[in-house]
Amino acid sequence: MDKLIYLVPAMGVLGLLYTLVKFKWVSQQDAGSDRMKEISTYIADGAMAFLKAEWKILAYFVVIVALLLGFMASSNPHSHWSIAIAFVIGAFFSALAGFIGMRVATKANVRTANAARTSLKKALSVSFTGGSVMGLGVAGLAVLGLGGLFIIVKALLVPDGSSVNSADMVKAIEVLTGFSLGAESIALFARVGGGIYTKAADVGADLVGKVEAGIPEDDPRNPATIADNVGDNVGDVAGMGADLFGSYVATVLATMVLGQETIAVDAFGGLSPILLPMLIAGIGILFSIVGTWFVRISDSAGISTDAVQKALNMGNWGSIVLTAIASVGLVYWILPETMSLRGHEFTKWGVLGAIGVGLAVGTLMSIITEYYTAMGKRPVMSIVRQSGTGHATNVIGGLAVGMESTLLPILVLAGGIYGSYACAGLYGVAIAAAGMMATTAMQLAIDAFGPIADNAGGIAEMSELPKEVREKTDVLDAVGNTTAATGKGFAIASAALTALALFAAYVGVIKNNGYDLGDAINIYKADVLASLFVGAMIPFIFSALAIRAVGEAAMSMVEEVRRQFREIPGIMEGKGKPEYDKCVAISTDASIKKMMLPGAIAILSPLIMGFAFGPEALGGFLAGATVSGVLMGMFQNNAGGAWDNAKKSFEKGVEINGQIYYKKSEPHKASVTGDTVGDPFKDTSGPSMNILIKLMSIVSLVVAPTLAQIHGYGIPEVKAPAQKVENTTTAKAGVIATADNAVVYSTK
Amino acid sequence: MDKLIYLVPAMGVLGLLYTLVKFKWVSQQDAGSDRMKEISTYIADGAMAFLKAEWKILAYFVVIVALLLGFMASSNPHSHWSIAIAFVIGAFFSALAGFIGMRVATKANVRTANAARTSLKKALSVSFTGGSVMGLGVAGLAVLGLGGLFIIVKALLVPDGSSVNSADMVKAIEVLTGFSLGAESIALFARVGGGIYTKAADVGADLVGKVEAGIPEDDPRNPATIADNVGDNVGDVAGMGADLFGSYVATVLATMVLGQETIAVDAFGGLSPILLPMLIAGIGILFSIVGTWFVRISDSAGISTDAVQKALNMGNWGSIVLTAIASVGLVYWILPETMSLRGHEFTKWGVLGAIGVGLAVGTLMSIITEYYTAMGKRPVMSIVRQSGTGHATNVIGGLAVGMESTLLPILVLAGGIYGSYACAGLYGVAIAAAGMMATTAMQLAIDAFGPIADNAGGIAEMSELPKEVREKTDVLDAVGNTTAATGKGFAIASAALTALALFAAYVGVIKNNGYDLGDAINIYKADVLASLFVGAMIPFIFSALAIRAVGEAAMSMVEEVRRQFREIPGIMEGKGKPEYDKCVAISTDASIKKMMLPGAIAILSPLIMGFAFGPEALGGFLAGATVSGVLMGMFQNNAGGAWDNAKKSFEKGVEINGQIYYKKSEPHKASVTGDTVGDPFKDTSGPSMNILIKLMSIVSLVVAPTLAQIHGYGIPEVKAPAQKVENTTTAKAGVIATADNAVVYSTK
Repeated sequence: MDKLIYLVPAMGVLGLLYTLVKFKWVSQQDAGSDRMKEISTYIADGAMAFLKAEWKILAYFVVIVALLLGFMASSNPHSHWSIAIAFVIGAFFSALAGFIGMRVATKANVRTANAARTSLKKALSVSFTGGSVMGLGVAGLAVLGLGGLFIIVKALLVPDGSSVNSADMVKAIEVLTGFSLGAESIALFARVGGGIYTKAADVGADLVGKVEAGIPEDDPRNPATIADNVGDNVGDVAGMGADLFGSYVATVLATMVLGQETIAVDAFGGLSPILLPMLIAGIGILFSIVGTWFVRISDSAGISTDAVQKALNMGNWGSIVLTAIASVGLVYWILPETMSLRGHEFTKWGVLGAIGVGLAVGTLMSIITEYYTAMGKRPVMSIVRQSGTGHATNVIGGLAVGMESTLLPILVLAGGIYGSYACAGLYGVAIAAAGMMATTAMQLAIDAFGPIADNAGGIAEMSELPKEVREKTDVLDAVGNTTAATGKGFAIASAALTALALFAAYVGVIKNNGYDLGDAINIYKADVLASLFVGAMIPFIFSALAIRAVGEAAMSMVEEVRRQFREIPGIMEGKGKPEYDKCVAISTDASIKKMMLPGAIAILSPLIMGFAFGPEALGGFLAGATVSGVLMGMFQNNAGGAWDNAKKSFEKGVEINGQIYYKKSEPHKASVTGDTVGDPFKDTSGPSMNILIKLMSIVSLVVAPTLAQIHGYGIPEVKAPAQKVENTTTAKAGVIATADNAVVYSTK
Repeated sequence: MDKLIYLVPAMGVLGLLYTLVKFKWVSQQDAGSDRMKEISTYIADGAMAFLKAEWKILAYFVVIVALLLGFMASSNPHSHWSIAIAFVIGAFFSALAGFIGMRVATKANVRTANAARTSLKKALSVSFTGGSVMGLGVAGLAVLGLGGLFIIVKALLVPDGSSVNSADMVKAIEVLTGFSLGAESIALFARVGGGIYTKAADVGADLVGKVEAGIPEDDPRNPATIADNVGDNVGDVAGMGADLFGSYVATVLATMVLGQETIAVDAFGGLSPILLPMLIAGIGILFSIVGTWFVRISDSAGISTDAVQKALNMGNWGSIVLTAIASVGLVYWILPETMSLRGHEFTKWGVLGAIGVGLAVGTLMSIITEYYTAMGKRPVMSIVRQSGTGHATNVIGGLAVGMESTLLPILVLAGGIYGSYACAGLYGVAIAAAGMMATTAMQLAIDAFGPIADNAGGIAEMSELPKEVREKTDVLDAVGNTTAATGKGFAIASAALTALALFAAYVGVIKNNGYDLGDAINIYKADVLASLFVGAMIPFIFSALAIRAVGEAAMSMVEEVRRQFREIPGIMEGKGKPEYDKCVAISTDASIKKMMLPGAIAILSPLIMGFAFGPEALGGFLAGATVSGVLMGMFQNNAGGAWDNAKKSFEKGVEINGQIYYKKSEPHKASVTGDTVGDPFKDTSGPSMNILIKLMSIVSLVVAPTLAQIHGYGIPEVKAPAQKVENTTTAKAGVIATADNAVVYSTK
């Protein structure tokens, strides 16, 4: 029965095979005219240039961190130097996930444009297949990586006969955290760097092109146009790919860490709680593939968003329902009747309930997010009305909508935490997130098809294809905007649950390594409270840096375009060739420079807190950062989405105080201001929040054994009289007893 | 030696006597020409109309809450029905504090304008005396109220011979929390209502007057002008007066609650830790009076801000240094060598250290806030530069500055929490806040003089006094802007420390009432974590409601002014008399309606959390709300202040990319957008945050005995195996043992 574990990497391979086959299929589609091919080559080359520049910097980062990790791990009996290798693999896979996405997106964009010359059905087919290549590539890599590594480290580090709750298994799982650390840290840099890139190019191209030179959007004479289209690929595609790869891995891993602590008498030597999240992920891949078959529209559908949205919903819900049904069977089959984690007993039915809670939270989150950002609904309409009195009231309206939009999602999330915990304790919180993330492949396919369609529209414009082509890509793009907004709601909810699970895992590792937390991260101790403040401040600083970076990088872009307009003869007559690569390089350099400091803050701040103030202060820090990060993420994503759609509402005309206003009216100009303010909110800092909170938790989890080692020697200051020495050993007696150095660390 | 307590109300009476004498002095000054008197009467009447309307609504609120409180308290053996009376007195005093401030401000404004016809020295003298009447009135009422009530409840509820750590004393202090609840809840309504009023009138008057009708600011033809000037008095004066009254009381009270729990063998029957904060407040009154003597400039000073700022600094530092020196003597005299609170031992030197930490935190906070909002410094200059590329980049720049400005204050605050706790445990955190707030009278005098000078300028303009008069009031106004910004930094820091002290007090009351918290509010329990999220969301919702209210109320104002321009014949020629009172009524009604929901959220949300999910969940909720409220407060105050000064920078001309821009330039228009966005940030929602977090903590503290009563019966679910039954009794054996019903509640 132990062979079940091999199913996991097998599912990963299945996902990658699908990726390969469909990638070939996309490549074989006709890329259209020479002009289209030329433009798409520019875009692909620009995207590749960014990724190469990014990788060059990140390579140094990976090598340095790997050395530090290896050094730290090898001097700690509860860790192992191979964590450094896991880290490198995680980083490599994350970069690969972004690369696959970028490659297929820069192929699918031009082919979607070409397919749109035929029919909407064909265009949807190409763009969605492009998205699904990315989705299954990401999920396949994640499942293969986690499953494969688990098999290897288990074989190397866990002797036969060693219990799943043993110190050996703790060590094996600890090595896996390195994989997640690699994945998530690359994800952060990719998301932030890509986010700065895309918005800098977007804003920069618009400011000089549309405003100063008076040429239309996507005009090939504008040297920044290609950079703008490259931005869609490196930000919305490669950045998102790395992001979701990291999230997916982190979620499954968090459940595995808690699963390792869970005491379960099953047919798999107690392994079932560890296997479950990986198996659900594997099933998710299978049914995501099945789900892609549902995404199709008939030739007679006409050119409307409804049919496309319905097709995507079919695929999405198909894969979710099938995965949920299969999960019921799986849970019923592999889990024992009852389990316990840190003294909290729960049943297999509880685990099923927690998965149900996770799915419900994800669904509600998407619905609420859509409400707050959709055209025609109250929130967006309130911003439209407030555009009538100028720029300032539009901005105030958007900020108010963004802040208000945190109410329901937070209540849903709090209910989800409460509910999943009630179902199956901390394991329930983790498995709820894992359930939500099971169909990541399908989610990502739906998300990634948006920017592909967006790019297809740009290429159609630049290649001067007939208006009908653009109409079809616009329909796809409009649906993509909706899925992008709901995807963000989903992402922040799953990130919150994952961060909490990682937080719980961190607490467990600290305690299992012999540091006495006195059974609690006590919020009313002064150092914990102080750390709570510091943690909650990090998302504010991170956001400040990210949105300022967009502003400054946009300015660099403006300078370069002005220079080219000045110095290249005949550029405005379409005779002189713009130096697209210079703009791409400017945007690339600026974004890579500006991603460093926020990235460093994310990685270093938990280290400083932990090493300087101890494991409990770090716990307070993580809680503060998670709570504030989730709120800032929702606030910024939803404000940005609402501003965007308030602006779009003017395209068809809106009524304000009995008068109809269209594009170019004063209220429309005010709405453009809000949209521009929202750009870095919704595409740079907002979506980084979910990576930020997970990354900080993973960093803490990775260094937890060393933290316990450093702070665990000697007796911590007694702060409350009622802390009992006996407490230490009760929580996880098994582990402490079997850990070879337990005696050394045993506190007090 | 017990007679020492009578010193406290005596100091309160001293403050009130000063208030009375100086109020008379201000009244006796010449109010200038008939035109000036007429205008000032309009303003005074408008302000009175608002206060009356506000009181009418709040009277219902006070009666209902008092009845509920009395009912709740009388069915709880650890409380007493007289808490309802304390509540009513607190509410009344708070309203009275606002009333005194408003009355003197509406007298001092016109007299300052008239004094400015003579000299700057005279104008400063009148306006600052006006401010100090308010400052000493507020402080006097607070000290008299707290000291007097303490003497009365002690006489009524604590039998002779009953220990200071006895259940009787717990009950007496519990009654005092009612006083603080009354003060702080009126403060919240006054601050939010006043904040909405002032910004609605401001924005509304500008939109129709300056933009639509093309008449200058403060033009008497604009029906909203008076409302605008009324707004300064009800928002910046009456609102702030109630705010600081509430804060001052809450801070002293929090220290008293923790002081009651402190075990101290002294010459005052163990009372010294309770007496200390009240005595320090009393000393603060004395030396604030002394400090006012230092605030003077010479006739030869010339018309410059430097001399005025220096005079105010002299007064401020004089009172702080004198109070600090006297506090050293006081601590040395009344406190015993060592004390202990919940098993944490500390010395009198530690208490002195904690007071020092509090003063250091307050000073640093003011300096940092000034840096982020001052003209010519990097943050404001970055916004100025970003105004060069339009409205959107200006807004992005301001948001980034606001978010970034949380970094240093949070580190200082965290250091302050850590440091004051290290000095004297939780009592240290509380006394640090009390030390910061000791010279509230002087702080408030300095704060309140700003809006008086601002109003004086408006009256000078409307009465067409010579330009030199306006120049002098502008100097005072400019200094007032600086002191307003730093005052906000100070307020949020002291609020954070106070909220933490109240939080600790809440935990103590819950435990002393026999509910077993297992020695901790454990952040990694699911319900606590879920509550942390919900709590952190409240400041976002509160802010959303407040800033939206300003937008909507401004629209109502615009409608009314348009109507008057249309319907009153000859209004534009200065012949038809504008119906000022209609605008005042519009603004009054709108602001009072819109203050209800945010106020209700602040009061009801902790009740819902506590009664539905229990004391520990409420603890998580409070921690989340405090952390997020502090951050949102800093973010909004500093962003608003920076936007304001970025706009003001254009008055003297600024250089952007080598070109000089002045008022009316495109970059200046962009900066006006930012300033308008910042208006509700810095004058409505931002400054409400510090009341919000304290009020929620006080509500929790007041209902704590009932919460413990309801949730304490029966055995709470065992969530971790290591919770020990014995823990309960160790923390505060004295109280549990002497409480008559201890046996009934004793958990498990």
